[in-house]
Amino acid sequence: MRALRCRGDGEAPEVGAVADPEPGPGQVLLEVTAAGICHSDITVMNLPGEGLPFPMPLVLGHEGAGTVAALGEGVTGWEVGDAAAVYGAWGCGVCAKCAEGRENYCLRAAGLGIFSPGLGAPGAIAEYLLVDDARHLVPLGGLDPVRAVPLTDAGLTPYHAIKRSLPKLTPGSIAVVIGVGGLGHVAVQLLRALSPATVVALDVSEAKLDLARQVGAHETLLSDEHAATAFRALTGGQGAQAVFDLVGAPATVALAAALAGVESDIVIVGLGGGRIPVGFGALPHGTTVSSTYWGTRAELIEVLALARTGAVEVHVETYALDQAPHAYERLHEGKVNGRAVILPNG
Amino acid sequence: MRALRCRGDGEAPEVGAVADPEPGPGQVLLEVTAAGICHSDITVMNLPGEGLPFPMPLVLGHEGAGTVAALGEGVTGWEVGDAAAVYGAWGCGVCAKCAEGRENYCLRAAGLGIFSPGLGAPGAIAEYLLVDDARHLVPLGGLDPVRAVPLTDAGLTPYHAIKRSLPKLTPGSIAVVIGVGGLGHVAVQLLRALSPATVVALDVSEAKLDLARQVGAHETLLSDEHAATAFRALTGGQGAQAVFDLVGAPATVALAAALAGVESDIVIVGLGGGRIPVGFGALPHGTTVSSTYWGTRAELIEVLALARTGAVEVHVETYALDQAPHAYERLHEGKVNGRAVILPNG
Amino acid sequence: MRALRCRGDGEAPEVGAVADPEPGPGQVLLEVTAAGICHSDITVMNLPGEGLPFPMPLVLGHEGAGTVAALGEGVTGWEVGDAAAVYGAWGCGVCAKCAEGRENYCLRAAGLGIFSPGLGAPGAIAEYLLVDDARHLVPLGGLDPVRAVPLTDAGLTPYHAIKRSLPKLTPGSIAVVIGVGGLGHVAVQLLRALSPATVVALDVSEAKLDLARQVGAHETLLSDEHAATAFRALTGGQGAQAVFDLVGAPATVALAAALAGVESDIVIVGLGGGRIPVGFGALPHGTTVSSTYWGTRAELIEVLALARTGAVEVHVETYALDQAPHAYERLHEGKVNGRAVILPNG
Amino acid sequence: MRALRCRGDGEAPEVGAVADPEPGPGQVLLEVTAAGICHSDITVMNLPGEGLPFPMPLVLGHEGAGTVAALGEGVTGWEVGDAAAVYGAWGCGVCAKCAEGRENYCLRAAGLGIFSPGLGAPGAIAEYLLVDDARHLVPLGGLDPVRAVPLTDAGLTPYHAIKRSLPKLTPGSIAVVIGVGGLGHVAVQLLRALSPATVVALDVSEAKLDLARQVGAHETLLSDEHAATAFRALTGGQGAQAVFDLVGAPATVALAAALAGVESDIVIVGLGGGRIPVGFGALPHGTTVSSTYWGTRAELIEVLALARTGAVEVHVETYALDQAPHAYERLHEGKVNGRAVILPNG
Repeated sequence: MRALRCRGDGEAPEVGAVADPEPGPGQVLLEVTAAGICHSDITVMNLPGEGLPFPMPLVLGHEGAGTVAALGEGVTGWEVGDAAAVYGAWGCGVCAKCAEGRENYCLRAAGLGIFSPGLGAPGAIAEYLLVDDARHLVPLGGLDPVRAVPLTDAGLTPYHAIKRSLPKLTPGSIAVVIGVGGLGHVAVQLLRALSPATVVALDVSEAKLDLARQVGAHETLLSDEHAATAFRALTGGQGAQAVFDLVGAPATVALAAALAGVESDIVIVGLGGGRIPVGFGALPHGTTVSSTYWGTRAELIEVLALARTGAVEVHVETYALDQAPHAYERLHEGKVNGRAVILPNG
Repeated sequence: MRALRCRGDGEAPEVGAVADPEPGPGQVLLEVTAAGICHSDITVMNLPGEGLPFPMPLVLGHEGAGTVAALGEGVTGWEVGDAAAVYGAWGCGVCAKCAEGRENYCLRAAGLGIFSPGLGAPGAIAEYLLVDDARHLVPLGGLDPVRAVPLTDAGLTPYHAIKRSLPKLTPGSIAVVIGVGGLGHVAVQLLRALSPATVVALDVSEAKLDLARQVGAHETLLSDEHAATAFRALTGGQGAQAVFDLVGAPATVALAAALAGVESDIVIVGLGGGRIPVGFGALPHGTTVSSTYWGTRAELIEVLALARTGAVEVHVETYALDQAPHAYERLHEGKVNGRAVILPNG
Repeated sequence: MRALRCRGDGEAPEVGAVADPEPGPGQVLLEVTAAGICHSDITVMNLPGEGLPFPMPLVLGHEGAGTVAALGEGVTGWEVGDAAAVYGAWGCGVCAKCAEGRENYCLRAAGLGIFSPGLGAPGAIAEYLLVDDARHLVPLGGLDPVRAVPLTDAGLTPYHAIKRSLPKLTPGSIAVVIGVGGLGHVAVQLLRALSPATVVALDVSEAKLDLARQVGAHETLLSDEHAATAFRALTGGQGAQAVFDLVGAPATVALAAALAGVESDIVIVGLGGGRIPVGFGALPHGTTVSSTYWGTRAELIEVLALARTGAVEVHVETYALDQAPHAYERLHEGKVNGRAVILPNG
Repeated sequence: MRALRCRGDGEAPEVGAVADPEPGPGQVLLEVTAAGICHSDITVMNLPGEGLPFPMPLVLGHEGAGTVAALGEGVTGWEVGDAAAVYGAWGCGVCAKCAEGRENYCLRAAGLGIFSPGLGAPGAIAEYLLVDDARHLVPLGGLDPVRAVPLTDAGLTPYHAIKRSLPKLTPGSIAVVIGVGGLGHVAVQLLRALSPATVVALDVSEAKLDLARQVGAHETLLSDEHAATAFRALTGGQGAQAVFDLVGAPATVALAAALAGVESDIVIVGLGGGRIPVGFGALPHGTTVSSTYWGTRAELIEVLALARTGAVEVHVETYALDQAPHAYERLHEGKVNGRAVILPNG
C-alpha cells in the first residue's frame, strides 16, 4: 500500500510503498478515509534517523478515521464496513491508568515498547492502518470522517485539559485560550459548550482572533506586551479561573502566569518549550500549573458525541495523499486555517 | 474437568464432569486455586431451570483466583504460571462505561448476552476457568490466592460503595455498617483504612458484633428495635454521614434511613429486597439513596494493593471441591464466619 | 409599615400594618423593591395557627430584593442605597455546614430557633425586611431587582440541584426536567447554560411545553401514561443521566424513576409528597435518588452572575402589595406563567 | 495588657504594654491561653519598619486559642468562658471565596486592608486577642488549648494541602513529605489518618527522621543527593502520587520534582523561595504543581475533630510570655522539636 513516511533528521516526508498490514488476533485493519496532520509530526521529522526505540522510516499520522477492512481473530462488536475513529493514545491496557481508560497516562507503555500510531507505530497517513486492539476504535456514529478526524487529537487534547478545570468554571468565571490554531479554535468551542465561563482568546494574529470570534469567543486580545494590562482592564482586575496555553512557548506561558487568578488552573498544552516557575508567592495563592497529554478513551467518546450536536466544528483543509508533504509545508508556515486533513484513499 | 454445577429450580448444586475449556484468541485459561462462595449464588440456584438467557446447568462461582494455564492467540503481558485474580463484572469493553473500566455498569452487556462467570458464563468453582478477555485478570502480586479471592467480590463490592462516599467521611463524621457478614466485616476494615470516620457496626448477632470489633469497628450496636435510639445516644443526636447496608432487607433499610443525617449517603448493597421511600421531607435534606453493583477494574487493583499492606484481611474457611455443596448449606444457615472458599485443585 | 401577613389554618393572607423593624448590631434593614411568591407559601398558609415554633401571624415572602435602608452597628461593606438580593436559607453561621456557606443544610437552625424570612422569621412581602446578618445579602450588581428576585429561590433551588449532577452531564447525556413552572422553566435554562446535555422537558400542559421550548429545551413530551415509552423512542432506549422533578407528586416521581438510566441521578425538588422506593434492583444499578433543599450562598452569587450574562431569564408577572392575595389565588389556580413578584413599595 | 511586639527591620521582638482591646459589635475578646510561634513570624520581623499597609510595631502570633472574655454587641452563640481556637485567615466574609468559608483565598482582603492576627492585625502573643468577627472562633470541644493551638496553622496548613490530593491517594499510592518540622510532623500523621497511602518522609536531619517514624511514616530517607535514587529503589521505580514540600527551598522543590510520578500533585507549602519550572515535558505527564495558603474554616473544624480522636498530636514546647523572644531564637536555630507555644497568661 502507499503511505507517507518520514526518515527523521529533519528530512521532508515522502509518499511511497510499504507492505500491506494484516490484522492479528484482537487487531483491526482500517481503510483510512481521513488522517489529520499536526505540529507534533514536525517534531517527529526532526528526530534523529537512528537509535530510536522504534524503527525508521515511520509512517506518520496520529489522527485517523476510516472503515473497518478486516478483523483479526477473536474481535467482536465490529463488522467490516463500520466507520470508526481511532483512539491513538495506546497503552498497555492493564495498568491502573489503563484500567480506567486513561491510556494516555499508561504507566508501562514506554517500558513495553508500546507506541501510538504515527509516533512510533505505523501511522494513519496511509491507505490502511493497523489498529493494535479493537478497543482503540470508537464508532463515528454518522459523523463525517473528514471533519471528525481532527477531533481525535485537536479535539480530544483540549477537551481533556478543559474537563479537569470545569468545576472552577462556574458562572462569573473567566477562561482564557492562548493560541487560536488547530487546537485553540476547538478549545474556544469546547469552553462555550461545556461551561458558562466568559471565554477570552489571545493570539498574535488578527486573523486568528477573527476565527476565535467566529467560533464563539466572548472577547479577543492581541497577545502582545500590552495583553496582561488589557486583560485586567477587561475583567475589572479579576484574574482568570483557568488559562489554557495551546502554544506553550516562553512568551505565552509567561502571559498565562500573568492572567491567572487566585485558585486558578494554568494548563500548558502546547509543546513550545516554555516553563512557568512555581513556588510559594510566585503566582496567586492556590493556582495549579500542569501540562496534560492527549485524553482518555471515554473523553473521545464524549468529544464525538459533542460534535454530533453541532457544538464543535473543526475548520478543515483537505489534501490527497500525494499532497501530504505540501500540507506539512503550509502547516510549518502557519498558513493552515484550522486543521489540514489527508485523504489517503480520496 | 470437574466442576460444581447448579440446575436451578432450587435444587442443590452437584459436582460433576464438564468439557475442558480451551482459550480462543484474546482469552486466558486459568487453573483455579481458590473460588469464593456467596449468598448471591443461592439466588442463582433458585432461578428457573429453563427459559433463562444463558444455558443451565451452570458452573457456579463468581470469585476466582488461580494461575495462568494457557493463553489464547494474541494475548500479551501474561505468562503461563502467573498468579491472577479474576475481575468478574464482564462488560462489552467498548461502551462509555467500559471505556472507563466501569464494566460493572456496562450499558450493553445484557443486550449482547455477556454474563459474569458463575452468573451466566461458566464459573470459578471448577478445576479451570475460561477468562473471556485477558483484561479481566489482575496480578495477585504475592497475595495468597485463598485469602485474596474473596476480595474480588466481598472486598470489591463494599470498596466500590465506600469509595463514592469518601468525600463525606471527613474527620468528625460517622460511617455505619449494617450486617457484619462476608461483605460487612470487610467494609469495616475498608472504612478504617480509607477514612478517619468513626465506624459503627450493627448486626442481629452478638458473635458478628464481636467480629466487627476485632476488625476495627469503633462502636457496635445490636440491630434491634432500640438501635436508632442507641445510635443517637452514642452520637449526641448526630446522624451518620454514610450508611452502608450490606443486608438490604426491609428491616435493615428502614434502620439505615433512621440513622442517616443531613446530606448523607445511604448505600444499599445487600439483595434483601428492602426499599427506602425517597422524596421531599422523607429523609434529612440532601440525603442520597442508591444501590451499587460490584466494582470497577481499577478498584479491584486498589483493593488488592490495600490487602498487600495488611489493612484488609478476610476471614476464610476452606473446602475441597467435593465439599462445596456442604459449604453452601453452612452459608445458608448463617454458620460461615467471614467467607467460605473452595479449593478446586486442592 | 405595611406587610402581607398569614394567620395559618388555611386562611387567606391579608395586608396590614406591622411595627417598623430596626436593625440591631450586624443586621441590615432592606427597603423591599421586589418579593417573589411561591407554592411553598401556600404550605405555610395551611399550617395550624397556633403551636408553631414561631409566632403567627407571619409576614410572608422568602424571595426578597431591595435597597439598603439602614445598617446595624458593626456592619461593614454595605452603604445605604446599595441594591441587594437576600440569601434566605439562614443558618447558625458556625456549624460545619454553615462554615462552608451551606446554610441551607445548617445542623443547628431548628434547635436554635433560626428561621428563614417568610418561613418563620418576618418575610419580604412588606415595605421593609430585617436581614438578620449582613452576610445574607448579595450585591445585585446591576440586575433588575424585579426580574432577579425569583432567582433567590426559583433560580437557586434548581441551580443547587443541577450543580451536583454536572459531572454526569457530559456530551451525549440526557437531562430531564419534569414540571415547567416557576422553578422548571429556570431549570431548563440552567441546564442549557451549564452543560452540553440534551434537555428533555415534560409537563401535563402544552402551554408549559411551549414555554420549555422557548427557553431552550431540545425536546418536550407530555407527561402522560405514554411518556416513558415516548422518551425511550426519542433516546434510542437510553435512560437519562439526570432527572430533576420540580413537582415531586406521586405520578411525577414514578415517571422520574422510569426515565432514569444506569448510574444516573434522580433529584426530587418538588414538595408534592411523592416517594420513590429505592433498593437493590429497584432502579438501574448505581442510580442515586435524593431530595435537595434550596442552595448555598456561593451558588446564589453564581446564579446572579449567570443572569448578568443573559443566560437565565425569569418570566415574571408583577403585582402591587395590595394585590398580593390575588396573586396567590392565581398561583393556586396554576395561572401564573413563570413567577409572580410583589412590589411592596411600587 | 502585655504583648510581644515586633518593630520590623530585623529587630528582635520585645514584650511590652499595649492598650487593652475592647470588642465592638460582632467582635469577641479572647483571653489567650496559648499562642504558637512560626517561621513565618520571622519573615514579619524582617519586614521594613515603615511603609507597610499596617501599623508597626505589631503584636505577633497567628496561632491563638483561649477563653471568651467579653462579647461585642450582637454576638450570639458564645458565652464568656467558652474555650475556642482562632481561625486566622480572616477575609471579607462576602466574596465568592468567603461565601464558601475559603477566607484564606479571599478576593478582597488586600484591597480592604483586612489582615490576619499577627500578620497585620494585632496577634495572639498577648494577654488578650481581639477577634474581628465571632465566625472566626471554633469551639475547642475539650481539646487542651496548649496542644491544640498549633493545629490552627501547623495543622490546618498541611491538612488543606493534603485534602485536595486525597482522591489521588488510593491504596498502592505513595505520599511524600519533605521536611519534618512543625508542619511536616503533622503532615505525616494527617496522611496516615486520612489515606491508605504509603508515607515516605525526607529531611536533612536524622533526628527529624526519627520523629517522622515515631509519628507514623512508613519509610524515611535522608534528603541528600542520593535521595531520588534511594526513593526509586524503595518504590520499584514508581513515582509518588503526591509530594508535599513543607520547606520549599530550591533544593527541596527540585527533589519534589524528581520524586513525582505521572498525574501526581506537587504542593509547595514552605516559604523557602524555591521554584519548579513547569511546562510540556518538564515533569511526568499530567503532574500539577501548586502552592497553597493556610486552610478553610470548615477544614479547621475537621482538624480539631481529628485531634479529638487522638489521630494527630503536635509535639509542643511551652514558654512564658517573657521567654517568647528566646523561643524565636531557638526556632531560628532549628532547635525546636515540633512546635513552640507561648502561654501569655501562664
